[in-house]
Amino acid sequence: MGAPESPGSSRTAVDQALEALDRTTVRLAGVRPAGEVSAEVGPRRFLHSGPPIGLEEAPGPMRGAIIGGLVLEGEADSVEDAAAIVDAGEVELAPCHEAGAVGAMAGIVTPRMPVVVAESADGSRRAFAPLNEGLGKALRFGSYDEATLERLRWLAGTAGPVLDAAIGASEEIDLTELVAEGLRRGDECHNRNVATTATLVARLAPGAVRTASRDDAAEVLAYAAGNRHFGLSFSISTAKVLADAAGHLPDSPIVTAMAGNGVRFGIRVSGTGDRWFTAPAPLGDARWLEGFGPEDAQPLIGDSTITETTGFGCFALSASPAIVSYVGGTVASAAALVEEMRGICAGTSSRFTIPPAEFAGTPLGIDVHRVAESGTAPMVDNGISHREAGVGQVGAGLTRMPVAPFAEASEALRAATAGAGSS
Amino acid sequence: MGAPESPGSSRTAVDQALEALDRTTVRLAGVRPAGEVSAEVGPRRFLHSGPPIGLEEAPGPMRGAIIGGLVLEGEADSVEDAAAIVDAGEVELAPCHEAGAVGAMAGIVTPRMPVVVAESADGSRRAFAPLNEGLGKALRFGSYDEATLERLRWLAGTAGPVLDAAIGASEEIDLTELVAEGLRRGDECHNRNVATTATLVARLAPGAVRTASRDDAAEVLAYAAGNRHFGLSFSISTAKVLADAAGHLPDSPIVTAMAGNGVRFGIRVSGTGDRWFTAPAPLGDARWLEGFGPEDAQPLIGDSTITETTGFGCFALSASPAIVSYVGGTVASAAALVEEMRGICAGTSSRFTIPPAEFAGTPLGIDVHRVAESGTAPMVDNGISHREAGVGQVGAGLTRMPVAPFAEASEALRAATAGAGSS
Repeated sequence: MGAPESPGSSRTAVDQALEALDRTTVRLAGVRPAGEVSAEVGPRRFLHSGPPIGLEEAPGPMRGAIIGGLVLEGEADSVEDAAAIVDAGEVELAPCHEAGAVGAMAGIVTPRMPVVVAESADGSRRAFAPLNEGLGKALRFGSYDEATLERLRWLAGTAGPVLDAAIGASEEIDLTELVAEGLRRGDECHNRNVATTATLVARLAPGAVRTASRDDAAEVLAYAAGNRHFGLSFSISTAKVLADAAGHLPDSPIVTAMAGNGVRFGIRVSGTGDRWFTAPAPLGDARWLEGFGPEDAQPLIGDSTITETTGFGCFALSASPAIVSYVGGTVASAAALVEEMRGICAGTSSRFTIPPAEFAGTPLGIDVHRVAESGTAPMVDNGISHREAGVGQVGAGLTRMPVAPFAEASEALRAATAGAGSS
Repeated sequence: MGAPESPGSSRTAVDQALEALDRTTVRLAGVRPAGEVSAEVGPRRFLHSGPPIGLEEAPGPMRGAIIGGLVLEGEADSVEDAAAIVDAGEVELAPCHEAGAVGAMAGIVTPRMPVVVAESADGSRRAFAPLNEGLGKALRFGSYDEATLERLRWLAGTAGPVLDAAIGASEEIDLTELVAEGLRRGDECHNRNVATTATLVARLAPGAVRTASRDDAAEVLAYAAGNRHFGLSFSISTAKVLADAAGHLPDSPIVTAMAGNGVRFGIRVSGTGDRWFTAPAPLGDARWLEGFGPEDAQPLIGDSTITETTGFGCFALSASPAIVSYVGGTVASAAALVEEMRGICAGTSSRFTIPPAEFAGTPLGIDVHRVAESGTAPMVDNGISHREAGVGQVGAGLTRMPVAPFAEASEALRAATAGAGSS
């Protein structure tokens, strides 16, 4: 007999979602302009991170990124023109998550931006995430100065095409295995991606050399190797394919998205489809970069918490001892946190493991009923943006999600089940 | 007051050696032909692994590698000619360790072979190790067939020059930091080098692209990225610089070399200079490749146990959970082994750490007095060669060194100290 997997949903509904999260294999398909990959992206129709948000509500980093995006796309000749377009409400916004995408920080995706495309091994599902710009001023933190735009033009004109051709000339890269191996190499593949980045560069370098000009190959490899977060776009697009594979299963309480837009935090749940359950965006316990503090911070912004949704990131924190110097805590507290997350997850990953814990599988599949009943909310490790456009990162840390959206989703699922039962 | 660091030597003698092991910074100098780097290597004067050995004693893998080396150098037109030269005793042999070198497995170094050159930051010390040939048949296991020789010619003619030029065109690589970061990425940098290999490829790729032809750059990067042990030559040449920096300190009981030639295991100790203390080469507890067993194995052969001599490899085993699938045991037993090694070491590394153990420094500086008094000998993790030339690797495992050479060295040091005291 045995107790059902979840306190409020059938075992089948839980198991189907777990199976999708645990068994879907994802491969690297290419790096293409976003406008080519998705019809949801247009010259004045941009994607953004987190749950839906109005243009007028967009926090500093998101507004800055929209302004930069308009100049990048040639919709505005100057920053002032771009700001006027925004103020006139002449830009449409849609969540990345609703377009098969995930974006770090502000998550603004415009048509020209090169995006990493991940797809399920059977080719039935695709997801994408913008190439990571690298350190310094960056659009994802709301920068729109000339250096930021110049780099974005180079990413669109050179890095994207070079990487895409290199991928085409290389052996297929299994992205789920890349993440699994990343955990064996001390990354948790959310905020620590250094080993995974090196692996990607090593895998793609011969192909880049064979297909690009000498100067382009050298510059693109140097950009990728020199960017600690280059691997992030690959890990989060992988996670998005996994999460989408677990979506839209009737009665299933498994979370398929956790994301922030800087104002609100929102989740989507398999059994409730595309509906968002939201609460004010949280601000966690952070390590602040020198000169910054909580008063400078934008609350949770970005879709990269898709990693925790699919069994890595903070849910594999103790696989990555070196990350504690970045997000705080100790290796022991990281291990305790992973154990705590087991209590709100329906299962265990068979692919993503914690090497120092004798390769125990990571907790997989956040169950909204378990969160609601225990009052224990998921924890993520995340970078923190300045609340003003273009200042950049001000810290990183561990952030506890609010319980309310999970409780609300749990309630909605139970109500739907009761409704179905009485009909 | 405090107890002296070592039961039989002065604190100063111990501390000086520890300081050399812990504070010498090593950088990557280049990849050059061995004959250019060392006057000790000549057309019929080859280096070999382990303590001194006569040509007539050379075990299968070493004899095979010598035969291959003679053909590679053009000293013999055929394998038969080469065997006749060996049988006539017309090749001189010297230990790698006596020429500033370290060689994996048979450790045969001939003039044309490209070697990784490491040097101390002040330029005062250099050490080298042959580029790792990769998987399959290899000279280091005693192969001398045409495919083995063809690859060695390509390494000498293409890979070596391309890597050397790439190093010259790249930012300086701090090899001690490379090893330290390797431990943070789940390598122990003796038998697991996958993350370190990827890091090296990522660091060197842009330079290779800028300095080599397209075909050469692509081939060399593919060779390096595809060879799990590419990083080994870099980590062992680094270790050799560290060990040599700790050498020749009067009265110091710190081990500066542990190595096997397949017949005898030998150590050198700081306070006894160039003298070897030897015992029959041990054969450890191994995981055998399919179809092989202990009867196929050559006892300990190779200089790569220089890693354990300088605070990593098996002495950092629990930094590398993924290695247990290769050498056996569990993550917990690996951690226990590292703790056991603390008992025979005089100090703790400040640079090489065990990330899952809250970044505790690795045990550093094997003290022969401690080994002699405790009866606990060092443990290494090592690859195991077939005892016949050219068959290749038959297993890998954990091998306990014999206590006798350490006890003998301890006795020699005490006798020298007593002699000095009575004079």
